[in-house]
Amino acid sequence: MTYCVAIRLEAGLVFCSDSRTSAGVDDVSVYSKMHRFQTAPDRMIVLLSAGNLATTQAVTTRLERDLVGAEHNLNTIPHLDEIARYVGELSQRVQNDFAGQSEQSSGMMEASFILGGQIRGQVHEAFLIYPQGNYIAASRAKPFLQIGETKYGKPILDRMIRSGITLERAGRCAMLSMDASMRSNLSVGPPIELMLYEADTLKPSQSLYFDAENPYLKALSGAWADGLDRLFAELPRFDWE
Amino acid sequence: MTYCVAIRLEAGLVFCSDSRTSAGVDDVSVYSKMHRFQTAPDRMIVLLSAGNLATTQAVTTRLERDLVGAEHNLNTIPHLDEIARYVGELSQRVQNDFAGQSEQSSGMMEASFILGGQIRGQVHEAFLIYPQGNYIAASRAKPFLQIGETKYGKPILDRMIRSGITLERAGRCAMLSMDASMRSNLSVGPPIELMLYEADTLKPSQSLYFDAENPYLKALSGAWADGLDRLFAELPRFDWE
Repeated sequence: MTYCVAIRLEAGLVFCSDSRTSAGVDDVSVYSKMHRFQTAPDRMIVLLSAGNLATTQAVTTRLERDLVGAEHNLNTIPHLDEIARYVGELSQRVQNDFAGQSEQSSGMMEASFILGGQIRGQVHEAFLIYPQGNYIAASRAKPFLQIGETKYGKPILDRMIRSGITLERAGRCAMLSMDASMRSNLSVGPPIELMLYEADTLKPSQSLYFDAENPYLKALSGAWADGLDRLFAELPRFDWE
Repeated sequence: MTYCVAIRLEAGLVFCSDSRTSAGVDDVSVYSKMHRFQTAPDRMIVLLSAGNLATTQAVTTRLERDLVGAEHNLNTIPHLDEIARYVGELSQRVQNDFAGQSEQSSGMMEASFILGGQIRGQVHEAFLIYPQGNYIAASRAKPFLQIGETKYGKPILDRMIRSGITLERAGRCAMLSMDASMRSNLSVGPPIELMLYEADTLKPSQSLYFDAENPYLKALSGAWADGLDRLFAELPRFDWE
């Protein structure tokens, strides 16, 4: 399993992903699920991936290969939503190839992606690309997108994320969302990658990598846990208490 | 959807359930999912239900009917785990009946239950009964059981529930778990029912019913939300802030 979240704020974008992949509890590995494409000066593109690792690797490899070998690629497509469509088509093609090859059900080959970034002169955006290849955009009213093991980490996002908050506040919230997912699902695990992107800069503002022993990750997670304990102890009592 | 949770503490048992059922967003109703059976003086039995409403209603109806018409019933079965088996068998039978009747896939008819309670002279226990009819018990290391829309409400339980805490503390935690589920999934909704059972009393200690406007529910939910906001604002900053 995997957990990735992207947040689209007025101030920019936040991306956060875990690094654990598992094909069963006896086959656990570490793979980055945050892919940065920054090969053209007029754009900044980040892709988060979840699902079948063979599919997501094949998709990112083809994206890289198209950059040098195809006219239609991440550097030449003029709008971010068209790039989402291009990634979705590629994902569908890879899934169908693999499913045909193995005669397995294509559901096994499924992958989801979050595409975010900005092209100069356009607004920054984020899209969730479904296994079927179609996609939806983050909006002011629904500023975050999630893929993978999404539910454990959703309540904190529902509470805290508004499109007007700062990149740093959203970044901390993404990390707490990841923390909740890691506690409740063993197949989500560190290292955690976090990228903050300030709108109109066309390059990552902060690109952070937290292993399990990282002092800031431990301080954040510890402060949250201790604070929750205190808060919980102070809640209003039932009338008979 | 539905969300129910039961917590088995050293001090006793806590049961909490929502009351929303939906067969599509245009077909939402209110049904209690907490069924109390207290017909024999030597035992206290509570059943929480999730899944297909026709199945769960048929199961509870047959449990009631067996109380007067069958030798093998909730009042006569000597151990709680055997009652779990009896409920599981009944559930399987109802699911198969309905599936055969409609020629629909039996997956549509599935239901899950949490059975909890105590029989005099035995320890209090809680069991999760799967749609397949088999069941597992809550334990000291895993004191809570959930059915229905379980994931949004799990992180708070993972953090706060230990088998040595008080019934009241666990009751508040169950309500916050319910609050998280209601915020993140529209198909989980009030009224909320909460029952606290003190071990060895063989009757409910507190049986509470909270509609959306209930003052305690609003105070609890508000105190938690405000406290989370304050806590979040005080978290350690990134080093460049």
